Amino acid sequence: MKLNNNYQNLKKDYLFSTINKKVEEYKKTNPNADIIKLGIGDVTKPLCPEIVEAMTKAAQEMGKSSTFRGYGPEQGYLFLRESIAKYYSDFEVSIKEDEIFVSDGAKSDLGNILDLFSGDNTVLIPDPVYPAYVDTNIMDGRKIIYIGANESNKFLPLPDDRIKSDIIYICSPNNPTGAAYDKEGLKKWVNYAINNDAIIFYDSAYEAFIDGYNLPHSIYQIEGAKECAIEFCSLSKRAGFTGTRCGYTVIPKKLKRNNVSINELWFRRQSTKFNGVSYIVQRGAQAAFSIEGSKQINENIFYYRENAKIISDGIKFAGFWFIGGKHSPYIWFKCPNKMSSWEMFDYLLEKANVVGTPGCGFGKNGEGFFRITSFGSKDKIFEAMARIKKLFI
Amino acid sequence: MKLNNNYQNLKKDYLFSTINKKVEEYKKTNPNADIIKLGIGDVTKPLCPEIVEAMTKAAQEMGKSSTFRGYGPEQGYLFLRESIAKYYSDFEVSIKEDEIFVSDGAKSDLGNILDLFSGDNTVLIPDPVYPAYVDTNIMDGRKIIYIGANESNKFLPLPDDRIKSDIIYICSPNNPTGAAYDKEGLKKWVNYAINNDAIIFYDSAYEAFIDGYNLPHSIYQIEGAKECAIEFCSLSKRAGFTGTRCGYTVIPKKLKRNNVSINELWFRRQSTKFNGVSYIVQRGAQAAFSIEGSKQINENIFYYRENAKIISDGIKFAGFWFIGGKHSPYIWFKCPNKMSSWEMFDYLLEKANVVGTPGCGFGKNGEGFFRITSFGSKDKIFEAMARIKKLFI
Repeated sequence: MKLNNNYQNLKKDYLFSTINKKVEEYKKTNPNADIIKLGIGDVTKPLCPEIVEAMTKAAQEMGKSSTFRGYGPEQGYLFLRESIAKYYSDFEVSIKEDEIFVSDGAKSDLGNILDLFSGDNTVLIPDPVYPAYVDTNIMDGRKIIYIGANESNKFLPLPDDRIKSDIIYICSPNNPTGAAYDKEGLKKWVNYAINNDAIIFYDSAYEAFIDGYNLPHSIYQIEGAKECAIEFCSLSKRAGFTGTRCGYTVIPKKLKRNNVSINELWFRRQSTKFNGVSYIVQRGAQAAFSIEGSKQINENIFYYRENAKIISDGIKFAGFWFIGGKHSPYIWFKCPNKMSSWEMFDYLLEKANVVGTPGCGFGKNGEGFFRITSFGSKDKIFEAMARIKKLFI
Repeated sequence: MKLNNNYQNLKKDYLFSTINKKVEEYKKTNPNADIIKLGIGDVTKPLCPEIVEAMTKAAQEMGKSSTFRGYGPEQGYLFLRESIAKYYSDFEVSIKEDEIFVSDGAKSDLGNILDLFSGDNTVLIPDPVYPAYVDTNIMDGRKIIYIGANESNKFLPLPDDRIKSDIIYICSPNNPTGAAYDKEGLKKWVNYAINNDAIIFYDSAYEAFIDGYNLPHSIYQIEGAKECAIEFCSLSKRAGFTGTRCGYTVIPKKLKRNNVSINELWFRRQSTKFNGVSYIVQRGAQAAFSIEGSKQINENIFYYRENAKIISDGIKFAGFWFIGGKHSPYIWFKCPNKMSSWEMFDYLLEKANVVGTPGCGFGKNGEGFFRITSFGSKDKIFEAMARIKKLFI
């Protein structure tokens, strides 16, 4: 019996447990403190009425012989894949239904997609980054090259032709920094991928936060991307599905390596190791793409966007360098006075009773930076920013 | 860019597509034939009222600020893990909540669990078998040894000490054969696993069909199993969740290899590559374990069990050797007159307009056998068996 020893190379992630520990300790000595938490990237607005209604109806259907559904297609019901394909047409991207795979979330697919690729590949991952990209590759023993996202490239690194890699991770709008690529930036990555026979894993989980159509919502808005990119998206942030669980992955039929269709490989993987998403959840997801559902969702996104504006304005007022907040629920700022990320954390906790996320938790280039999220209530965010502004003027 | 070339070693599964093709062709030339399908292993009874009510309530909760839920624990909500732990106590098995992992189904976990184990391990798989066990290991390039299930061992093979293996698959009650191990049989496998430092993957998806408590519902009813077995179970067959999607995997804290806790490895895997099951579905699953929910579920199982009895009686009357049907929704019989599985399929389709599943689709030892499932309506099953009996007397 041999275990997969790569798991022994994983670092234990202490970020959120340390945050919780520090907050609990502070509360013990300051039981009356009114602590405002702007740290975790989870939505707070409830599901829209249209979605709740669709899921309620679907649950009822499952209770009647005439409308009961057993095993569904592993790839997702056609009704949902059609809705997603139609959504893509809003960005003038033509995606066929059989290029879309419905799943229980982008996190699952981003991890499981690696099954299709040899452990010998080299992966290129920006730093700072969503930690799952790193850990899933450590689990397979792949070589990881980090590419520096930093103040000078506004946390939007561009390819370096001297570096060779096979798999490239891009998250735009980015978690944790909130930075979003424009078409020119993504075009450079597509060209790099094509020149290197590489595949881009494009995580577009936050695309719904892009304001307007100037920035790309999908990598397939870039010419050539269908030959070199897989796109992972989710209803978590767009429709508040973090606890409802539904995402989708797009693999164009044109995407081939060594004459093998990646779409067919993924279909084989999913039909062997997955049995599709709950019918009830898929009906909810469909409603999230309907005209009325989209309208209701956009009201929530507008609410979070206003929150982000309040935060951005506050950070600007305090005079910190920052990015994000415009096309993203995240504001990523540089800690003032050369404070480290954890020093800033302690300072904000103690002096303003505000909890954010230390940037160093997302990679070494995150040191000296700090993340605040706009997923809270407007009142609380207003209050938090008033306290921060007061501290720094 | 290197693909995982093991995928090229997968055989295309033509079983159900060939069945569908044959049925469609028959229909074309016999448009008025009243075809009865007893082939596919999917449930037909709708979800119980208690489950529908719980999911409806949960969907409503998700639509209100005060009761909305975002990200849940990757391992599943404690309320559900407590219900599952309590269910185990019915078999006098003590399982702690942190030994239970809730997932979207046993199929996912049975595939994904292999992430924890080196590709160098040798796996022992019975033949005939649920095809996913084989395919998931081919995808990782593991060496597979088949152990023959056949008429002489009543499709319940016992370990052979001369064969060395690291991972052992046991499905009991079995898919496709319906055969179920008694405690003595399982004890032999547990002893073998301990002697070989091997781990048993115990698929108990059909445990709810076991009639009474003489046969083990869980491998943990066998002494020593907590040191050598992982149990995979599902609500698919017990509660009709094939389209609702919820399962669970039990990994005892005692299960270690090379001093590494398999429970901790799996937790790390799941928290990195999975984000938990929909809150709504977990509330439905909880209801399936409640007193009223269990009562309603048992009525459905009783219905399927009566169907299985009708099939068994018919097969017995026709004089075929068979197993299953008692502790399982499946009846597995030997084709008469030395017919091959596909000959039997064609014969039943043409002469009785009954569709079943050729045993050869589950492995070479399935050749000459045939599977019928009890998941249909009582009337149809009655009619189907009347036609078969008429053919063979």
